[in-house]
Amino acid sequence: MKGKFITFEGCEGVGKSTQIRLLQAYMDERGIEYYMTREPGGSSISEQIRAVILDGKNAEMTDECEALLYSASRVQLLSEVIKPRLDAGELVFCDRYVDSSLAYQGYARGLGVEFVERINDYALREFTPDLTVFLDLDPSKAFMRKGGADKTDRLEQSGMSFHEKVYKGYKELSKKYANRYLVIDASGSKMQTHHKIISALKEKGVF
Amino acid sequence: MKGKFITFEGCEGVGKSTQIRLLQAYMDERGIEYYMTREPGGSSISEQIRAVILDGKNAEMTDECEALLYSASRVQLLSEVIKPRLDAGELVFCDRYVDSSLAYQGYARGLGVEFVERINDYALREFTPDLTVFLDLDPSKAFMRKGGADKTDRLEQSGMSFHEKVYKGYKELSKKYANRYLVIDASGSKMQTHHKIISALKEKGVF
Repeated sequence: MKGKFITFEGCEGVGKSTQIRLLQAYMDERGIEYYMTREPGGSSISEQIRAVILDGKNAEMTDECEALLYSASRVQLLSEVIKPRLDAGELVFCDRYVDSSLAYQGYARGLGVEFVERINDYALREFTPDLTVFLDLDPSKAFMRKGGADKTDRLEQSGMSFHEKVYKGYKELSKKYANRYLVIDASGSKMQTHHKIISALKEKGVF
Repeated sequence: MKGKFITFEGCEGVGKSTQIRLLQAYMDERGIEYYMTREPGGSSISEQIRAVILDGKNAEMTDECEALLYSASRVQLLSEVIKPRLDAGELVFCDRYVDSSLAYQGYARGLGVEFVERINDYALREFTPDLTVFLDLDPSKAFMRKGGADKTDRLEQSGMSFHEKVYKGYKELSKKYANRYLVIDASGSKMQTHHKIISALKEKGVF
């Protein structure tokens, strides 16, 4: 009996954290059991790697090094946390996963999708998510809705052309991995988007 | 004008550190300029990654995670230290490099050479060493010579079958990459081996 592995993806400012909280509340109210984790991090070793990635003093880190560190953190989280829970038949959600590396580093940073796929072989082959909830909204609209980019967030300050590239990357991925992508129109209200996610997950028999 | 990039490889207990010191003394006496670095480590970010790899508390680290961290540390060292020096025409030596990952993790730990090659693409394609000095001695003979394995060294305590696999891995690599491998018989005295290394490097026009 294998559990289900469901990931959340989307551009900055699209409301991903809010939607995850709403989904958790929905499942908690109904007594649906699940495990929620996030990337990078989620295990002791992965958190140590996260600290190296995010340390502001490490400005000289190359894109290749960063991508390899994300991948190292990911395989450790898979082995220590996600795989044992899936083997026990659990429903596991992860806020961001390999598609974030593909979209941000492969498509937008220009490392090349092939390189990022190559170093994430395990995540793409043996631990492909069963479903990926992609919150689909053009970043220019997302930032407009929330009144501009967050000035304290390094990624949100990366410039609109960067975010447009990430968005295009996700659109490509949603075609390439159409069998697991649930593309959710996130242009409406919070609750409209929430109901779309619940419907889509119900239709796939998640609960 | 591109510099020369020369790596040192060999099993535990073969006398690699001693030979590197003897080579440095030889070059220092003759005023030959060079830069010596080592793996893992060699730059600030690479040292942070090294600390995660070597932390005794991280016993749950998977082989895949470890291999990805070695590769991350390596690309950072390449970009920050080795590439700029090679571009400036310098003679750069590195104590262990990608072949250590191939031999220890690919052949001996059983991750598979293909996986290790895949995550070390940069090191194998764009930053292949010009020459690799391989100190060739069967580990059982090396440990016998030094009176047994070092009880304080985690790797030396890994068991003889592990070290034999590493050795076989190096022998395979020396055939696969015959164009850059300098296979040095390390069964003689320190000074005999030293003279063999000097002769081989002279023959290749290093100095």
